Amino acid sequence: MKQSMLFSPTLREVPSDAEVRSHQLLLRAGFMRQNASGIYSFLPMGLRVLQKVEQIIREEMENAGAVELLMPALQPAELWQDSGRWYSYGPELMRMRDRHEREFALGATHEEVITSLVRDEVKSYKKLPLTLYQIQTKFRDEKRPRFGLLRGREFLMKDAYSFHDSQESLGDVYDKMYAAYSNVFRRCGLNFRAVIADSGAMGGKDTHEFMVLSDIGEDTIAYSDTSSYAANIEMAPVAATYEKSGEPLNGLEKTATPDQKSIEEVSGFLGLTAAQCIKSMVFRVDDKFVLVLVRGDHEVNDIKVKNLYGASVVELASAEEVQDLLGCAVGSLGPIGVADKVEVIADHAVEAVVNGCCGANEEGFHYVNVNPDRDFTVSQYTDLRFIQEGDASPDGQGTIRFARGIEVGHVFKLGTRYSEAMGATYLDENGRTQPMIMGCYGIGVSRTVAAVAEQFNDENGLKWPVAVAPFHVHLIPVNMKTDVQRETAETLYTSLRGQGFEVLLDDRQERPGVKFADSDLFGIPVRVTVGKKAEEGIVEVKVRETGEIAEIPVSELHTYIANILQ
Amino acid sequence: MKQSMLFSPTLREVPSDAEVRSHQLLLRAGFMRQNASGIYSFLPMGLRVLQKVEQIIREEMENAGAVELLMPALQPAELWQDSGRWYSYGPELMRMRDRHEREFALGATHEEVITSLVRDEVKSYKKLPLTLYQIQTKFRDEKRPRFGLLRGREFLMKDAYSFHDSQESLGDVYDKMYAAYSNVFRRCGLNFRAVIADSGAMGGKDTHEFMVLSDIGEDTIAYSDTSSYAANIEMAPVAATYEKSGEPLNGLEKTATPDQKSIEEVSGFLGLTAAQCIKSMVFRVDDKFVLVLVRGDHEVNDIKVKNLYGASVVELASAEEVQDLLGCAVGSLGPIGVADKVEVIADHAVEAVVNGCCGANEEGFHYVNVNPDRDFTVSQYTDLRFIQEGDASPDGQGTIRFARGIEVGHVFKLGTRYSEAMGATYLDENGRTQPMIMGCYGIGVSRTVAAVAEQFNDENGLKWPVAVAPFHVHLIPVNMKTDVQRETAETLYTSLRGQGFEVLLDDRQERPGVKFADSDLFGIPVRVTVGKKAEEGIVEVKVRETGEIAEIPVSELHTYIANILQ
Repeated sequence: MKQSMLFSPTLREVPSDAEVRSHQLLLRAGFMRQNASGIYSFLPMGLRVLQKVEQIIREEMENAGAVELLMPALQPAELWQDSGRWYSYGPELMRMRDRHEREFALGATHEEVITSLVRDEVKSYKKLPLTLYQIQTKFRDEKRPRFGLLRGREFLMKDAYSFHDSQESLGDVYDKMYAAYSNVFRRCGLNFRAVIADSGAMGGKDTHEFMVLSDIGEDTIAYSDTSSYAANIEMAPVAATYEKSGEPLNGLEKTATPDQKSIEEVSGFLGLTAAQCIKSMVFRVDDKFVLVLVRGDHEVNDIKVKNLYGASVVELASAEEVQDLLGCAVGSLGPIGVADKVEVIADHAVEAVVNGCCGANEEGFHYVNVNPDRDFTVSQYTDLRFIQEGDASPDGQGTIRFARGIEVGHVFKLGTRYSEAMGATYLDENGRTQPMIMGCYGIGVSRTVAAVAEQFNDENGLKWPVAVAPFHVHLIPVNMKTDVQRETAETLYTSLRGQGFEVLLDDRQERPGVKFADSDLFGIPVRVTVGKKAEEGIVEVKVRETGEIAEIPVSELHTYIANILQ
Repeated sequence: MKQSMLFSPTLREVPSDAEVRSHQLLLRAGFMRQNASGIYSFLPMGLRVLQKVEQIIREEMENAGAVELLMPALQPAELWQDSGRWYSYGPELMRMRDRHEREFALGATHEEVITSLVRDEVKSYKKLPLTLYQIQTKFRDEKRPRFGLLRGREFLMKDAYSFHDSQESLGDVYDKMYAAYSNVFRRCGLNFRAVIADSGAMGGKDTHEFMVLSDIGEDTIAYSDTSSYAANIEMAPVAATYEKSGEPLNGLEKTATPDQKSIEEVSGFLGLTAAQCIKSMVFRVDDKFVLVLVRGDHEVNDIKVKNLYGASVVELASAEEVQDLLGCAVGSLGPIGVADKVEVIADHAVEAVVNGCCGANEEGFHYVNVNPDRDFTVSQYTDLRFIQEGDASPDGQGTIRFARGIEVGHVFKLGTRYSEAMGATYLDENGRTQPMIMGCYGIGVSRTVAAVAEQFNDENGLKWPVAVAPFHVHLIPVNMKTDVQRETAETLYTSLRGQGFEVLLDDRQERPGVKFADSDLFGIPVRVTVGKKAEEGIVEVKVRETGEIAEIPVSELHTYIANILQ
């Protein structure tokens, strides 16, 4: 393509409202422009990257046995009422009325539409499994759109849905999708992890998020430094590898700790480590209270409390509730003498504490030389805390490190959440009506573009991996008015394209400095500069990724570029 | 692709709410399903056709020098307020509010968005011309969605916009787009005409509609039987080729015509032909009245009246207005003796009437032996009527025939309608601020799919032209349980795909009759049936278009199919 025809307006200044590198650079390089908060146009260069990512996704979906279809953005409210999400989704679901006052949702996701389509056509186990996907615009009215394409209100998504007559069949497709997603993000050049995630209120079981590692990520990932293990921190189990010290048990003592409330304050005051303290917190678990104990250097993971009880809601009890229950303030809580008032559960680490300390359920006092099971009763020791950096990896290989991640994909075993609500049933081999078992699988396509931009850039601009670069070669004649340069550039433009390279020819009448700065911003992998040495049949090749520059005879150019792009 | 994985549910019955062939067959063949009135899902087979059409469009757009981008569906109301269309577009423009109560339009078209994007980035004539396009979902809340994809509320469109610093530059891109559109529709196999159209209230000048010829079309096209001339009937000029007969002029007489009102009644009663009658109609042209005369066998084309006066509104006067003006009923109107009350204009054909008849402006009476210019005064003879079948073609070649057409594309010289309203200006070579001159160019992508389906079908189903067919070859083993058949089919599936054919393998356990009926419905150009003769290395090939069937040795299959597809 000739750059004079391209609409890719570059900016020298960093746009003031763009906080993160990908947002800044995609704007500066003219890959996109904002039309409204969280709503963007993809300009030609940006669209080319988007389409490369789409193509990779299509290939991997096809390999995984998924078939493409295209559902509408306008979705009748009735479908969302059937699933119940019309009422539960909240203001993120954009809603509108047509000229006849009929209500519609603007598709934030398509579980309802696909379930109704398959429900109406598939009646027998013989037509299952079925895996369908689309690449389509989604609408979510984010409260705080930010980071450009990373959290927008109108964005491109690949969403896939699978329908099954058995958990085995679902597991099979889930595994294929997991592999396909790994391939997609690997082919995009991303440094990512497939992370065990929370299945949340969806009622599903297995679920993984695909996280691109980035400091601007909104999620924290716990990963092993030696294996492929990775999980959202709330999902990572902690191995019970604590050992009691051989220290003799001292007698329990109550001691004054005036104005000492936090673990840091109390342990400092008492001359103990945080690990010798027992942290006590009251949670409301659905309709009952539970006292949860963790070691002072640990944090309670309420998801684990929730899963332990199979509860719907787990919340920290309020100061009033604690006062009512145990007659003391939150800062003085402890497990001693509460057995008749509240159930006590404790993290495994607490069991190994010897001669520790805990609150005395009395303002200004703590117990020291506390020893579990001698001084208080615990109904259950289990894994109740967040994993920490330095912990052993749950898969037994390596130790845990933390990283921030941007979620670009999600695979999820939905189960029968939608098929039951919407009556999507089939007849099994015995003629019995069964709800279809479903999986859903999403990729943020435009978000993936931003994630690549976030991982591949330097102070001068973007540095696209070859597989998703808008072009392979940026061909720049230094001076279009010099016949030899212009003619060499035009000859190369034709011959390189003939050899299968995607070439952008900068045919503009601009100063070389402008052309080179734009080229660095664009981040096309190979820059070929046609300058004065064109007369000798020599051009300059710069590799955007490394900055490496070489003078290459035109006759060797094809091979040289092919090697770089491999 | 294997048919067991495909979601393409066929119907044996014609859906009751589908009126036209394309709608019926696209539903029956499982190419699409309706989600709400005028809102459809493209199922996998339908999407494949849609994507083929998209690809043809992309190739032709690129050849025409247009560059692809992607704008959002959600458009801030402010943009539409700037252009004024927020107020003039009516209920077809779908509108909504976000969580902050900001108003948005769901893009029905993108003149406002593209004009604002280009306005904000292009400041100099050096960056012009610029031609940008997108393939994107559009939303229009049609009052009466019908005919399936032909008039939907959510549909896929290719819309292109060009920006220029001169009419010559616009004309150049207009011509390229015209050629590209002709290529697109020709490649889709369509029988179409590029039709001179009404530029309407847009203020533009040149405009052509691309019409697919079809009895279900909503527009009437006047075309030459020997040249490429075609126009919307309201746009076709009529050549003034009338000659007065040499008959001597008789004396004017008033005669009673009791209860004779229509041209048929009066001419029959008086023993004259309709062509001897002068039809008189009063029009309100903006704020004045005009008496328009045409021959009795002709119809007034109010667009021509409108253009003659450069008027905003031309409407037939009401019975009351006519009574006030001329003191008689509408059925008795005539041009004699009205010169002091109303301006009289006449179609060229009226000038050649000899001894004709007309109303006497008196209930129950007509004049006979009426001769224009002798008996009444005409301020102007000009072209005021609709063209008719049998008229000479306006380009001087052949005679006019009528056809119905489905509009699938539209090219339009917008001029400065949007650039002036929205302040999209550039500095010209002399440093003066000028409004950009614009063109816009649309193709109904999903409508084109329906138009192809409408032109290519028979009683058994669809018959896709090769270029847009969902697959090239439908490979059907008669009995998947027979080893030889299954193995032959699977070998052919691999080898034909390896040779570049797109193959759908019917691997379902269905009766042959079901498979063949589905195959005819799908309309894939070539069907290869693997039956009993597979043992002898022979398969059956059926050409969907012609119904031609032949037994072909497997070794010759590739060549045989390649010949059919060419």
